[in-house]
Amino acid sequence: MTPETRQRLKQVSTATLTTVLFKRGLRNVFIQGIFLLNRAAPRMVGEAYTLRYIPAREDLDQLGAFEGRGHPQREAIEACPPGHVLVMDARRDASAATGGDILMTRLMVRGAAGIVTDGGLRDTPTIEKLEFPVYCAARSAPLNLVRHHAIDAQVPIGCGGVAVYPGDVLVGDGEGVVVIPAKLVDEVAPEAASQTEFEDWVEVKVKEGRSIFGLYPPNAETKAEFEGWKKSRK
Amino acid sequence: MTPETRQRLKQVSTATLTTVLFKRGLRNVFIQGIFLLNRAAPRMVGEAYTLRYIPAREDLDQLGAFEGRGHPQREAIEACPPGHVLVMDARRDASAATGGDILMTRLMVRGAAGIVTDGGLRDTPTIEKLEFPVYCAARSAPLNLVRHHAIDAQVPIGCGGVAVYPGDVLVGDGEGVVVIPAKLVDEVAPEAASQTEFEDWVEVKVKEGRSIFGLYPPNAETKAEFEGWKKSRK
Amino acid sequence: MTPETRQRLKQVSTATLTTVLFKRGLRNVFIQGIFLLNRAAPRMVGEAYTLRYIPAREDLDQLGAFEGRGHPQREAIEACPPGHVLVMDARRDASAATGGDILMTRLMVRGAAGIVTDGGLRDTPTIEKLEFPVYCAARSAPLNLVRHHAIDAQVPIGCGGVAVYPGDVLVGDGEGVVVIPAKLVDEVAPEAASQTEFEDWVEVKVKEGRSIFGLYPPNAETKAEFEGWKKSRK
Amino acid sequence: MTPETRQRLKQVSTATLTTVLFKRGLRNVFIQGIFLLNRAAPRMVGEAYTLRYIPAREDLDQLGAFEGRGHPQREAIEACPPGHVLVMDARRDASAATGGDILMTRLMVRGAAGIVTDGGLRDTPTIEKLEFPVYCAARSAPLNLVRHHAIDAQVPIGCGGVAVYPGDVLVGDGEGVVVIPAKLVDEVAPEAASQTEFEDWVEVKVKEGRSIFGLYPPNAETKAEFEGWKKSRK
Amino acid sequence: MTPETRQRLKQVSTATLTTVLFKRGLRNVFIQGIFLLNRAAPRMVGEAYTLRYIPAREDLDQLGAFEGRGHPQREAIEACPPGHVLVMDARRDASAATGGDILMTRLMVRGAAGIVTDGGLRDTPTIEKLEFPVYCAARSAPLNLVRHHAIDAQVPIGCGGVAVYPGDVLVGDGEGVVVIPAKLVDEVAPEAASQTEFEDWVEVKVKEGRSIFGLYPPNAETKAEFEGWKKSRK
Amino acid sequence: MTPETRQRLKQVSTATLTTVLFKRGLRNVFIQGIFLLNRAAPRMVGEAYTLRYIPAREDLDQLGAFEGRGHPQREAIEACPPGHVLVMDARRDASAATGGDILMTRLMVRGAAGIVTDGGLRDTPTIEKLEFPVYCAARSAPLNLVRHHAIDAQVPIGCGGVAVYPGDVLVGDGEGVVVIPAKLVDEVAPEAASQTEFEDWVEVKVKEGRSIFGLYPPNAETKAEFEGWKKSRK
Repeated sequence: MTPETRQRLKQVSTATLTTVLFKRGLRNVFIQGIFLLNRAAPRMVGEAYTLRYIPAREDLDQLGAFEGRGHPQREAIEACPPGHVLVMDARRDASAATGGDILMTRLMVRGAAGIVTDGGLRDTPTIEKLEFPVYCAARSAPLNLVRHHAIDAQVPIGCGGVAVYPGDVLVGDGEGVVVIPAKLVDEVAPEAASQTEFEDWVEVKVKEGRSIFGLYPPNAETKAEFEGWKKSRK
Repeated sequence: MTPETRQRLKQVSTATLTTVLFKRGLRNVFIQGIFLLNRAAPRMVGEAYTLRYIPAREDLDQLGAFEGRGHPQREAIEACPPGHVLVMDARRDASAATGGDILMTRLMVRGAAGIVTDGGLRDTPTIEKLEFPVYCAARSAPLNLVRHHAIDAQVPIGCGGVAVYPGDVLVGDGEGVVVIPAKLVDEVAPEAASQTEFEDWVEVKVKEGRSIFGLYPPNAETKAEFEGWKKSRK
Repeated sequence: MTPETRQRLKQVSTATLTTVLFKRGLRNVFIQGIFLLNRAAPRMVGEAYTLRYIPAREDLDQLGAFEGRGHPQREAIEACPPGHVLVMDARRDASAATGGDILMTRLMVRGAAGIVTDGGLRDTPTIEKLEFPVYCAARSAPLNLVRHHAIDAQVPIGCGGVAVYPGDVLVGDGEGVVVIPAKLVDEVAPEAASQTEFEDWVEVKVKEGRSIFGLYPPNAETKAEFEGWKKSRK
Repeated sequence: MTPETRQRLKQVSTATLTTVLFKRGLRNVFIQGIFLLNRAAPRMVGEAYTLRYIPAREDLDQLGAFEGRGHPQREAIEACPPGHVLVMDARRDASAATGGDILMTRLMVRGAAGIVTDGGLRDTPTIEKLEFPVYCAARSAPLNLVRHHAIDAQVPIGCGGVAVYPGDVLVGDGEGVVVIPAKLVDEVAPEAASQTEFEDWVEVKVKEGRSIFGLYPPNAETKAEFEGWKKSRK
Repeated sequence: MTPETRQRLKQVSTATLTTVLFKRGLRNVFIQGIFLLNRAAPRMVGEAYTLRYIPAREDLDQLGAFEGRGHPQREAIEACPPGHVLVMDARRDASAATGGDILMTRLMVRGAAGIVTDGGLRDTPTIEKLEFPVYCAARSAPLNLVRHHAIDAQVPIGCGGVAVYPGDVLVGDGEGVVVIPAKLVDEVAPEAASQTEFEDWVEVKVKEGRSIFGLYPPNAETKAEFEGWKKSRK
Repeated sequence: MTPETRQRLKQVSTATLTTVLFKRGLRNVFIQGIFLLNRAAPRMVGEAYTLRYIPAREDLDQLGAFEGRGHPQREAIEACPPGHVLVMDARRDASAATGGDILMTRLMVRGAAGIVTDGGLRDTPTIEKLEFPVYCAARSAPLNLVRHHAIDAQVPIGCGGVAVYPGDVLVGDGEGVVVIPAKLVDEVAPEAASQTEFEDWVEVKVKEGRSIFGLYPPNAETKAEFEGWKKSRK
């Protein structure tokens, strides 16, 4: 992802991105069943660093599991590169947490771009005050050991019903999170920026009282009008 | 619906309306699984203008479908009369949108009373700032073509598990939306207004420390006390 | 529950409590599927006073059912002792209410510590303004008679998938509600308070840039550092 | 329930019973989400003997719980009177069993009319061979202690979303189970028998090629024809 | 649909049809959540005749609704042409029936090809003995008035999550039902027949011990072998 | 797993195994939401060979994906060792298949002990006739590419909510499938065999009319009686 792409993606909505990806035949790109916990957070753009959970097993998932360096969840928190998004596959089971405030804070301090989980998070009253984009499926106090066992990182996963490959780009706004395949990101970003510029102009026209017929989608006349407006701004 | 009825319905809660309709044998009048997106919106009262979606089919539901005048969703946005509520049947599937900010804004500018969908909406960070009542089942970025195909308008539909016939009256507050059969609306409104006046008085008594026994529901003594209070106010 | 325990429990999170209970083999202590309606409410700590609903039956559940003294829901509102939490088992069915603003206000005035239901509540726009902890599964306008029949009080129940025995202690914060078995509460509270002190210190260290390796969970060195810090504060 | 009523109910379908109860305003009488495990079983008719489960708690629900006489599930197996149906409220959670083959066999030997649970059952490959009506929500091997705690018997319960009061009459066929309020059973049975006689006659006419218009529901001419046919049979 | 197409479709599986439609970009063609009630039934092939239900409303949906000729469900039973499949949209709600044995028998006698509903059916112990393909979502005794209101016929609908337009061709086997868009049916049938011939040959080879590598999907050598085998049979 | 263990496990039920594992603190060992497709199959016992799916992505999951040797699903079919069970993690999504008759037949011919998937299977009318244990979550015609992407094999997975590590032992009967951690299997098998012998004896006693009090669980007297009976048989 070029720096220009990253910058552009911070200025387009997830809604617009789904349209641009739909034109390329991709219909299943919006992570289902999650929400933005900390609504004062900046827009989220970053490459996926993935973590996979399987169901817990009582003999393996005791508190001692976190000790030492080997625990994949703790490893992932320290390994996720700056500018990346930690994406967790919790099998859409939010009845227990996949992380809490200390881990979220550490990720933020390390410069991560955000975190997305289709499981729960705990300590959400603290997390929601961070200026850091955190998306989860539920506020869920139980520690992860009750339900989840972190098993490996940087493998392809599912998150909220969407495939996420390490290196895919995740974009998040107040609506949710879209996954852009790595190979498409540099072509999707400028197209989404253009579409955004057009839709912002349409919004103004609609507020002025214009009918949507011929405007959205635009007919030839509207296209010409928009192109004229764009030129006039330069 | 008389203007007086419309005015009264703006001052009663959906909770009170379900009680008044229950007395007439109607138990299933509250649209399930939706929420008010823009909490600064005024109370919603208006007649139903309905739109029905069926599942999308990949060969029919391409971006070109929106072009020209014939698309039922775009037609409905321009046809829904002022003072009416656009009600969408999306089969309670919120994994894709049934509309976005441009369409919502156009509806508002045209004088609609509000919109209710049991599917998703996109561009919700923008929509939630409109001073216009918008109810949906989820914030959902994917465009409708991914999942929904608008098929016809002004037919009886289901929305959130409730029957909605064109012309039924929808009332919405911060709790949700109630559907009142058209033929009942002028008798329901004054009864709900009376019930509201009584419950407001009860609330004051409860805050003063009165037990609910004999008060709510009222015994003969309480009824007399309330009637006396009402007279004293005039 | 000693006054000291009550005080301590007001200062620990539900997340920390699930960890302390997990150490004792209890994995299912967090009530699933509910949320705090009135976010300005104080922390909730209190003994459970339980109320059980079964499905409604049309011939029994008419408006007249509330009249007289015998209705279990109304009885429970007047019987729940000060400092206790009214906990309702509505079979996780939130398609109708299990109470409304008048009952919630009466509970608050009577000195209850809060209320938890795995069903719906009505009049939520009013309830959410009370400075009183109210947890429910949904905003739901329909009166309880549509779906629920209050049947008995102070029996063991399930609430949001968790066993609640009368006298168990419920603790609620912005994340949700944990159920502590009565016999464990006086040993759980100080342990949770200690754990909270440690985690608050960890949070500071993480904000200063410390890695979580060796810190959380702590190795011997970290434990010594924390003990030193604790001594230095006294 | 008179012996004549019991006999009649063995010859009518659950479908017909829902219609007869619907005429009396009862819409929610069919237990949802269960199936007949042993399809060679006789029709089931009997009064409800109820058993209630709440969620398990790890410290209480260990194998030792079954020892001695006090365990409510074991008590219920030995206490359910001959001719009665044991009805279990397992909160519609079928992820663990609420009984197994030994208990089902004991019930059968004791002369019970059948058993209905909205939880799971274990040892179903053995149970399904009994000539005894057993209805459950799933084949589920885990012992009840994993999820369920038997708490009390002969209290009103919910089963599969339907209210069941001790003494209500349960009727089961290959389709499922209907709950008839005790006070209605002697009037419902003959009406259902008459309706069955009429529908059997209609079925013959339809097989002969008759249109359903005027036949089902019957117009005056059809009613007369049916009455004539009934007389001709005597 | 030509007679030859109809004949071919009776000899291919729904699995094979989903593959042939997938090649044309159609991914959502298998009706979800239904099963074949009468497993001795012949294969089902026929054009869709559609019926749409909305939620019931207590004042409209009383037993009298079936009287006279106007009731859409009864009309549909008498209007569905021979060789067609009656397809019902019950909003995937199987808690009540959308038909019973008399209506199913009438449909069969009239020469319909089968029936598909994403709601429940009643009298299933009788229906399952008919030699007629009947697919539903559940055995469900309650009459349709409890939950469903038949509203119109021969409009596009959703059934089990799939779009069904009047005239589309439905094919059913023991696995379920596939919907083929009307315009594609004559090209899909021969392709599916060829694919079936190949897969039957593969099945024989696999039973003989052949590895699936190079066989399924076939490499050039396997393709040649299969073509040779086909020629040798003529 | 010793040959003796394998033999013993073929003679115990999944219900008994859950009890024996419960004694060791393992509560979540029964795969939820699946059923045995081919009921004439022999009992299933074998070590887990795992396959993991993630959600499909339209650009990657085209029919060409199966060509060549690299496709993980096809590789797994050819790599699963004789005596092992192929266990598939399809994220509990059964709206598309994870395999069909050709692959199942190949597995059987290769000597696998069975297959378990928490997704769908296609060609089930053919598969159900194989004398080979096949467990799935639904009959589902759509090819896997519609929803699933096979990603890797022999990694720890979740299946039906249960953790499965490669080498764990899966035991299946007509009720479902239990997962036994590899390290426990040789101690669990004899204990389950003993428990089975006792319960078979209890079943006889219950059929003779014995009360379950003191019998199940057994008191000292019953234990002595059973031990005597065992000795008398030798």
